[in-house]
Amino acid sequence: MTSRAQLAQHDVVEGVYLSASLDLPDIFGPETETRDGIRLYRPEDVPDPARIRFALAWNPAEDAFDAYPNIGLVQVIAAGVDGVLSNRSLPKHAVVARVHDKEQAAIMAGFAAWHVVWHHRQMGNYIAAQQASRWDRQTVKILRPPSAVTVGILGYGLMGQAIAQTVASMEFPVLVAARSPRQDEGRISCISGPGSVEAVAARADILINILPLTDATQGILDAGLFARMPKGAALIQLGRGNHLVEEDLLAALTSGQIGGASLDVFRQEPLPADHPFWSHPMVFITPHEASITSAPAVIDALEHSLEQIQAGQHPSTAVDRKTGY
Amino acid sequence: MTSRAQLAQHDVVEGVYLSASLDLPDIFGPETETRDGIRLYRPEDVPDPARIRFALAWNPAEDAFDAYPNIGLVQVIAAGVDGVLSNRSLPKHAVVARVHDKEQAAIMAGFAAWHVVWHHRQMGNYIAAQQASRWDRQTVKILRPPSAVTVGILGYGLMGQAIAQTVASMEFPVLVAARSPRQDEGRISCISGPGSVEAVAARADILINILPLTDATQGILDAGLFARMPKGAALIQLGRGNHLVEEDLLAALTSGQIGGASLDVFRQEPLPADHPFWSHPMVFITPHEASITSAPAVIDALEHSLEQIQAGQHPSTAVDRKTGY
Repeated sequence: MTSRAQLAQHDVVEGVYLSASLDLPDIFGPETETRDGIRLYRPEDVPDPARIRFALAWNPAEDAFDAYPNIGLVQVIAAGVDGVLSNRSLPKHAVVARVHDKEQAAIMAGFAAWHVVWHHRQMGNYIAAQQASRWDRQTVKILRPPSAVTVGILGYGLMGQAIAQTVASMEFPVLVAARSPRQDEGRISCISGPGSVEAVAARADILINILPLTDATQGILDAGLFARMPKGAALIQLGRGNHLVEEDLLAALTSGQIGGASLDVFRQEPLPADHPFWSHPMVFITPHEASITSAPAVIDALEHSLEQIQAGQHPSTAVDRKTGY
Repeated sequence: MTSRAQLAQHDVVEGVYLSASLDLPDIFGPETETRDGIRLYRPEDVPDPARIRFALAWNPAEDAFDAYPNIGLVQVIAAGVDGVLSNRSLPKHAVVARVHDKEQAAIMAGFAAWHVVWHHRQMGNYIAAQQASRWDRQTVKILRPPSAVTVGILGYGLMGQAIAQTVASMEFPVLVAARSPRQDEGRISCISGPGSVEAVAARADILINILPLTDATQGILDAGLFARMPKGAALIQLGRGNHLVEEDLLAALTSGQIGGASLDVFRQEPLPADHPFWSHPMVFITPHEASITSAPAVIDALEHSLEQIQAGQHPSTAVDRKTGY
């Protein structure tokens, strides 16, 4: 692990942007130039790779870390770290830290709540009716009161908690699958431990996935889970593409077992133009941007991680590299 | 006013359904038949008009009350009473009560929050992108953090309060115009008294109208109010059609002063098929069903109003017939 002495040996701590999918200097450049004590380079501009102590990273190339023998911190620019942890060149002892951004969680909560109401109120029918200039009242016929519609949430970190609060404020009963036991709180009930995902799914009229991607959660949204859900339930998939067995969802939509899906993440991104999800009438697609972290929040997180390391502490947003969150 | 003795003189209290726009017996019939002590008739089935003590009403015909000399209670089936208060045949001394339904408020909160996110995240762009099978990331370019987007709410009764809670849970600052002063609470700030509507509008990036319709609020959403709002602000109109000067909104949308509108209520309903709102790309139309009261909640309210009257009390949901709310 990078020691305080290592990080402090230059007045300016030097780092490198590492991403195969985003132009990070374009996103973060202006902010980093204005901060003291940190200097970030594009890989091609690094004067001395041995002086690079940290990386600001998002989906780095498989060999991205090879050139930098002294990286002690990999600060990911979002909450999900799976794209870094699975990287073959990631230095064995580097600390991997993520961003713990309350505003990102609030944006996610709004986005998730929007899709809950999309499915609950069948808002798409209104769009179709308007296109036909048709005054088509539907609510009195179809509306189940929120108190009779259970919203399940898989994952109860910062974002799962923010989603739960907003959904509960609309008087939906909320049932969450959490890693560790939690006290029930108002309309929010919690199930934890083995089988919690299955138990939540079994009662969820609308199921939101916001789990981290780990070995244990790969392909967790599959035919078996869908079969446990109430017939016609909706899926809101905000986790990672590899949580979902896409063929199983298509089959469940065809059979009516799943009544609708909102998908923000996919096995292959961008979603290929010929993927059947695009034209599926029961699928709402967004291009992996349910929420974003703001550039200032990322730089704050990076500074905070570096300060904690310099003070000899383990960064508070560091992930356990074994469990993946 | 109907006295306790009058209401108690028959074992069963008799009432009449009065609506020119809804088939109330179809909606409420099954519930009312199962309750003791109340008998509701269609007008054509009333055995003795003099025995009718109350009406269950929604947009009654102008002469609807004329046949019933002893109506002491008019129970409206929703929160808005303007369609009854403006009725020429409404008995002078009848108590007009509305429904104060927490679940209806929660449904309204979800609907309002949905439209806040619709405008904030420009969700319509995703629908257009999906129709073209286009992976079109927009958020990083356009997203203002919720903390920088003020949501104004005009009206702070049961529904305004429910909306404020849900919107605040998504970390938007909420500014409400209320009849009487209220303590600020977390992200919810309050302005009351004369000029409060204008003051809230002046700071609202997204403005939600949920005011009752009274003489004082007729046409309140007009060019003058729009001109005070931040350029490009969005309007979410959930009050009454007569709050809005529709031509002024069309002009404000054309000039860009208003950037988008969600409209649930209209001066003429159903909205005429040739109305320019239908095909306007910046207008989202729903057919006056942002929220509904469930039939059981209406019957509960009716029973409660009758019980209070029988106990010699003024019903707790009775409105002030002078102010209109």
